[in-house]
Amino acid sequence: MTEPLPSWHDTPTKQAILDFVTSVTDENSSNYVTPAERIATFDNDGTLWCEKPTYFQFLFAIERLKEMAAVEPSLLEQPEYRAAVQGDLSFFADLYPDDVGALMQIVFSTHAGMTQAEFEGLALAFMNETQHLRFGLPLKQLVYKPMVELLHYLDHNGFKVFIASAGGMSFVRTVAEEIYGVPRERVIGSNITFEIRMSDDDLVLYRKPGLIEPIDDGPGKPVNIELHIGRKPILAAGNADGDIEMLRYSETSEHRSLQLVLHHDDAGREYAYEGPSAKKVFSLARERGWTVIGMKNDWQEIF
Amino acid sequence: MTEPLPSWHDTPTKQAILDFVTSVTDENSSNYVTPAERIATFDNDGTLWCEKPTYFQFLFAIERLKEMAAVEPSLLEQPEYRAAVQGDLSFFADLYPDDVGALMQIVFSTHAGMTQAEFEGLALAFMNETQHLRFGLPLKQLVYKPMVELLHYLDHNGFKVFIASAGGMSFVRTVAEEIYGVPRERVIGSNITFEIRMSDDDLVLYRKPGLIEPIDDGPGKPVNIELHIGRKPILAAGNADGDIEMLRYSETSEHRSLQLVLHHDDAGREYAYEGPSAKKVFSLARERGWTVIGMKNDWQEIF
Repeated sequence: MTEPLPSWHDTPTKQAILDFVTSVTDENSSNYVTPAERIATFDNDGTLWCEKPTYFQFLFAIERLKEMAAVEPSLLEQPEYRAAVQGDLSFFADLYPDDVGALMQIVFSTHAGMTQAEFEGLALAFMNETQHLRFGLPLKQLVYKPMVELLHYLDHNGFKVFIASAGGMSFVRTVAEEIYGVPRERVIGSNITFEIRMSDDDLVLYRKPGLIEPIDDGPGKPVNIELHIGRKPILAAGNADGDIEMLRYSETSEHRSLQLVLHHDDAGREYAYEGPSAKKVFSLARERGWTVIGMKNDWQEIF
Repeated sequence: MTEPLPSWHDTPTKQAILDFVTSVTDENSSNYVTPAERIATFDNDGTLWCEKPTYFQFLFAIERLKEMAAVEPSLLEQPEYRAAVQGDLSFFADLYPDDVGALMQIVFSTHAGMTQAEFEGLALAFMNETQHLRFGLPLKQLVYKPMVELLHYLDHNGFKVFIASAGGMSFVRTVAEEIYGVPRERVIGSNITFEIRMSDDDLVLYRKPGLIEPIDDGPGKPVNIELHIGRKPILAAGNADGDIEMLRYSETSEHRSLQLVLHHDDAGREYAYEGPSAKKVFSLARERGWTVIGMKNDWQEIF
């Protein structure tokens, strides 16, 4: 096999990852874990792909709000439509994390009422065609190359790699196979509810207003991991407070486990921020011995 | 490879299955389907394991109701506890299909309030230790050998095999790897809700009263398939009216698809019944050209 993790610098971080994987896959090690139990769960926004200037799915919802307001101007009486038309990202950002439910409602209700196939077509086109304002690349290319290498490295070592995103399960699935090599059934996330409409000739899934509980953030992540996987992860990776419960959950595995937290500390090549969505995770990482990935020093390349 | 499906007689049913699998896995065929899209979904009760004298999970719930009534006799004022103590299976059977919600509440609430680990320990012990009254075997051995061969045959041919059970996801997962070779994350079913309780040292999943919507029966099956898989099955198998929507959903695949319906027509070796849970599925099978598996003529062995 070629050298693993080529876009990573040879730092203690990379060594911690290699050590962990070597140890749990070595049948002669006391840390050996069977393939069935090698579960890894990754947050998506800010862990696998860029989350600035704001979450890509918010940009997608904002586009939709603008389209809807153009057709029906009376919608501008509602603040989210006004904010969308005025390009006021802070309106949406300020709802997180304290009003995450309201924010999710806005994001998901913009694409309610259509078929799931229509939604996926729109989401895929958005990820393919929308240029990132700063980097001038389609959004789907703004994935962290070192993390994609890590996903593949784990896959090659018999891990089952899952995404556990606070963002939309269906939204991420439209591109996950292409950009990460993660199959659709291994993408867990928040989602709208569905209903089926059946005629003699067809059966169609429609997206219905209302979110599936629990939202896949914070305490919802371990719950959805149980529902979708039924096993504790032995490796969990995140970058924000919404990942704390998932990271903590992986610690309770009976096996050796690894917790990774990505620190955005590279204003030159990407962004440098902690902010309201990461008030606790880094102090917890120090207290509990989680491995912090520093973009600036640990990664040779970003995208 | 050894001859596939050795416990099946050489009938048109077996040939239809072999033809389908050969066709969708042949790269030179116009029916070729990529491995990522080779999704197969199987109902569980009455399709993969025996569902008589009643669903195994009902027996499990009934045991629990009896235990609870022994500790707290005032519970006998409630009809489900009385029915449990009196061994009146018809009380529970009569709730299906018209009061499936009430039935599910009874079944799932009996194991609410405990940790997920406790529940799984009880469920596994029940499946391992409870003898079937007629066959004198532990319940977990009452799986249909020809169907297990089919699961393995599909797996060997690059299919991703999922279980879509109206019964409990967690209940089935405790034994699915052992008896079917289906990993936990590929078992979809109905389930109770969860909550996490986190201390400095631990994070524990508790089972909480209340069911996750939708119940994985009837119209809930395509919805849960979308949530857990995100792709249409190209092969779906069931035995009752609650499987109709799943079977219909697989028909809407853009690929060649196969629908299998198991007919219990073998009173000597297993049971012969259609009954209230299968009023429509066999006439629909005739109308729509679904493949009906007859236990009596298609299977050399049952268990």
